[in-house]
Amino acid sequence: MQIVIIGSGNVAYHMAKAFVLNNIPLTQIFGRNEKELNKISDELKIPFSTEKLEDADLYIICVSDNAVETVSKIITKKDSLVAHTSGSLPKEILAGEYRKSSFYPLQTFSKSKELEYSNIPFFIETENEEDKKTLFEIASKISKNVMESTHEKRKYIHLTAVFACNFVNHLFSRAKEISDSQEIPFNYFLPLIDETVQKIHEIDPKSAQTGPAVRNDKRILELHEQLLKDESLEIYKTMNHSIQKMYEL
Amino acid sequence: MQIVIIGSGNVAYHMAKAFVLNNIPLTQIFGRNEKELNKISDELKIPFSTEKLEDADLYIICVSDNAVETVSKIITKKDSLVAHTSGSLPKEILAGEYRKSSFYPLQTFSKSKELEYSNIPFFIETENEEDKKTLFEIASKISKNVMESTHEKRKYIHLTAVFACNFVNHLFSRAKEISDSQEIPFNYFLPLIDETVQKIHEIDPKSAQTGPAVRNDKRILELHEQLLKDESLEIYKTMNHSIQKMYEL
Repeated sequence: MQIVIIGSGNVAYHMAKAFVLNNIPLTQIFGRNEKELNKISDELKIPFSTEKLEDADLYIICVSDNAVETVSKIITKKDSLVAHTSGSLPKEILAGEYRKSSFYPLQTFSKSKELEYSNIPFFIETENEEDKKTLFEIASKISKNVMESTHEKRKYIHLTAVFACNFVNHLFSRAKEISDSQEIPFNYFLPLIDETVQKIHEIDPKSAQTGPAVRNDKRILELHEQLLKDESLEIYKTMNHSIQKMYEL
Repeated sequence: MQIVIIGSGNVAYHMAKAFVLNNIPLTQIFGRNEKELNKISDELKIPFSTEKLEDADLYIICVSDNAVETVSKIITKKDSLVAHTSGSLPKEILAGEYRKSSFYPLQTFSKSKELEYSNIPFFIETENEEDKKTLFEIASKISKNVMESTHEKRKYIHLTAVFACNFVNHLFSRAKEISDSQEIPFNYFLPLIDETVQKIHEIDPKSAQTGPAVRNDKRILELHEQLLKDESLEIYKTMNHSIQKMYEL
């Protein structure tokens, strides 16, 4: 089976590396950025091109959301399967006469950061059973977590990730504002943060909840509100309200 | 120097263990719960009692916030230093004629969970310089992060922890509600969550922010609002508003 990866960014690099490490041969890595492709090609020993796209059975497009449609048009081989790797686009965004699919790895990728690929969940959507089987076989060589997912479901995956990652990171930013204001080094909180995350590997977050809101400690809640203002105060009130609703306090 | 730890819960256990592992001798562990004390005493080879409190130079009270005052009254030795380990109480809550102090380890403790004590920040407040020196010396044998902290400052430490830990955990609960509703296993999100936290060990959370709000991707923001309701919708709006304010979008 001939497989080509299109792109030269973080996702393309890690996707190519995950394939190579799991002995899934790649025919080519194709893209615009010669310098990046050269680096990836050197490290992973895969041929690259910025000009001639090889014939393949499977093309995996690893480019940013707003470039997927344009890039998908360069594939002209009708008897091929094309996958994009975006969490928020439908497979129908792919603009060609080939079979369309989605091959979505749920992770945040940076080139400089090593990743444990076997942990990365892959979500797959195809037009037919045979293509599904093909993509499942490939993803299962890389990861132990592979599941089917419609575009509808991917919307919720993305939404879950916004809560569990983007919003969590923003809480860290607001927390750091508070500790900075008192000249307390934010890294002092890292062991506590690590432990908070460690816990939910073992128990349901709902059972792991601690803090003044779930204890319904009105004295502390009022005291804290006096220390806060603007967006942080809004977050404080909204989160406590949501906690108290969840635990029916 | 004679040191006694009072309490038999999670904090008392880990405090005693941190002392023993760092070769700081303990004279006694004192408390009410004989069964728990017996277990700690067995594991750590420290004498225990439920009846006769030994004379000591330093007593460290490791009991829950609402018991600190009552417990502090059993210490009658005037020429001693007494510390509580609460993040939210002033040292003046200690009700005796001894010298008062706060010795606050910033971590969440469970007996069943091993901890790396050298990472745990200790915050110290005393009445005089000599006691400060004593507590700094002890804490510095356990941990590399020791700093002075008034009660005023401890309030902000606690508030920072509420944002970085209690609220973060609640976001995990709300995220899990969303993934559960679509029958997506929540553990699929753990690699992404781990990576989110890993990142802020290396870069400022403000620089690490990703997601639709900071990209100002109005299409996705509107789509997501249609998928949410009640408290989760409120959180969604409040967090996005706060993100957009922080980045002046």
